[in-house]
Amino acid sequence: MTQKPPHKVALVGLGKIAKDQHVPSITKSAAFEVGAIVSRSATGQDVPVYETLDAMLTGEPDIKVVSLCVPPQVRFDMARQALSHKRDVLLEKPPGASVAEVHALERLARENGCVLYATWHSRHAMGVAGAKAWLASRKPVSARITWREDVRHWHPGQAWIWEAGGLGVFDPGINALSIMTEILPAPVHVSSADLTFPENRDTPIAAAIRFSGADGLTVDADFDWRQTGTQTWEIEVVTDQGTILLSGGGATVTIEGKEVSSDEALASEYDGIYAHFADLLASRTSDVDLTPLVHVADAFMLGKRLQTEAFFD
Amino acid sequence: MTQKPPHKVALVGLGKIAKDQHVPSITKSAAFEVGAIVSRSATGQDVPVYETLDAMLTGEPDIKVVSLCVPPQVRFDMARQALSHKRDVLLEKPPGASVAEVHALERLARENGCVLYATWHSRHAMGVAGAKAWLASRKPVSARITWREDVRHWHPGQAWIWEAGGLGVFDPGINALSIMTEILPAPVHVSSADLTFPENRDTPIAAAIRFSGADGLTVDADFDWRQTGTQTWEIEVVTDQGTILLSGGGATVTIEGKEVSSDEALASEYDGIYAHFADLLASRTSDVDLTPLVHVADAFMLGKRLQTEAFFD
Repeated sequence: MTQKPPHKVALVGLGKIAKDQHVPSITKSAAFEVGAIVSRSATGQDVPVYETLDAMLTGEPDIKVVSLCVPPQVRFDMARQALSHKRDVLLEKPPGASVAEVHALERLARENGCVLYATWHSRHAMGVAGAKAWLASRKPVSARITWREDVRHWHPGQAWIWEAGGLGVFDPGINALSIMTEILPAPVHVSSADLTFPENRDTPIAAAIRFSGADGLTVDADFDWRQTGTQTWEIEVVTDQGTILLSGGGATVTIEGKEVSSDEALASEYDGIYAHFADLLASRTSDVDLTPLVHVADAFMLGKRLQTEAFFD
Repeated sequence: MTQKPPHKVALVGLGKIAKDQHVPSITKSAAFEVGAIVSRSATGQDVPVYETLDAMLTGEPDIKVVSLCVPPQVRFDMARQALSHKRDVLLEKPPGASVAEVHALERLARENGCVLYATWHSRHAMGVAGAKAWLASRKPVSARITWREDVRHWHPGQAWIWEAGGLGVFDPGINALSIMTEILPAPVHVSSADLTFPENRDTPIAAAIRFSGADGLTVDADFDWRQTGTQTWEIEVVTDQGTILLSGGGATVTIEGKEVSSDEALASEYDGIYAHFADLLASRTSDVDLTPLVHVADAFMLGKRLQTEAFFD
């Protein structure tokens, strides 16, 4: 437990993810408190609200930490602005609309002595650390990722996910990739992909991706945004010494058919994010792992494009 | 001039680029000689020819250097095989079909104490070093890249460039990006792109890409594979202190309208590549700059997809 006063955080973008996740986790954390909000639509807040990031940076010299919860297409300019004002910055996932822009932010953070944290919330799911430890002493032979959800339920009316740069089904899919890259003991790369675009949209609604690694390791990922009813977020890894299944988005671990860990009622991935962020701020260390975004960019670069019927919200 | 015996090189893939560029440059170089060829179709060679890389690696233990001139889709497995056999490896551009696979190769080269060289031949064009030096003390305000050529002339019957992973018009366009990333004094990133795909092909025939950098810098790139007649390979950078134009693919430099350098009759970009490779081998240093490929992957990830009429060779 920290004895220091909490870090004041400016929360930028008060959309669904900020309200559902960041605010509750910051409120629970002894290391942080919400110091200001940047939003053009927030009302009824008990902290100062600014319409622009620039106004907040000028008006709140004592707020040293900025959490960016805006869509990836506008994240770069805001991150750049905050880092230029020597603020520490937390980036929601994905950390940017391009890989190169995040490299540029890393460089700027280093030059300005700031902490930059590219978060991957799914890595903080209950089962991930245990799965990583279990896999560390084993040799994966094959893996299967099934990430199927209902876009209408999870992204109601979010136009930006369908616009070029919004990633489409890779917006949830990158959560799976953030877990995969965390738990697999050796790197893999995209070797082929089929991306299915609705004829009226600029981002895919489904994707089938084949990854390859050393010694014949293959990983097949099935991302689909058209699944109604039960939602599926599973990663299964077959190794030379047994099979492990992460289900519920990483919350539950099953080894050789036996459940070894389960979701605790109040656990939150974002509590894990802010706990890690507090450690990074204490040690003045950045954490920017771009591997999940590189896999997405690779899938777009070398994937086959297929077309399907138009999608309407 | 080296006094040591030349490095014996195994040339893998005896296609157009190997015959037109690698063989002549290796033949001219005092530091290298062709020691073997891996090809399923080579005839009439005066060095041993192997049908597979594996056979060459086993059959020629004294050949320590491998130049991979095969298409990017099959380069990874061959590079991995050569590095696993402790050979130093030169990669034609682009260095792979994915960004992640080249990161994996870098790691393998490091683990095995091998030199890995991801070449970008256009960086060795006559005007590039001069342009870089001139720009180093200036502040770019905007830039324009025009890279327009006739695919039927330069890639006759090369099916792989039209297959997913073959990059399409980015195959020449990445040459422009390799120069851009070499000469600009600060990083840029793709902020938007329009990619135009023939309705019967998996890779784009044209692309318009907008890059953004710090302080309002923008770079507009126009790649097009449909240009017959005069071919255009130009990069113009407007700075706070004058304008520089690289034309002829980087061969010619014009500053404020005055030509300051021109192509020498026998200069070859590949002579520059092998001279640099000799230095890397002497110092046991790898050179793997993935920035041009990252920009291409970013353009595919956040670009808008447009469709145009079918293309036939």
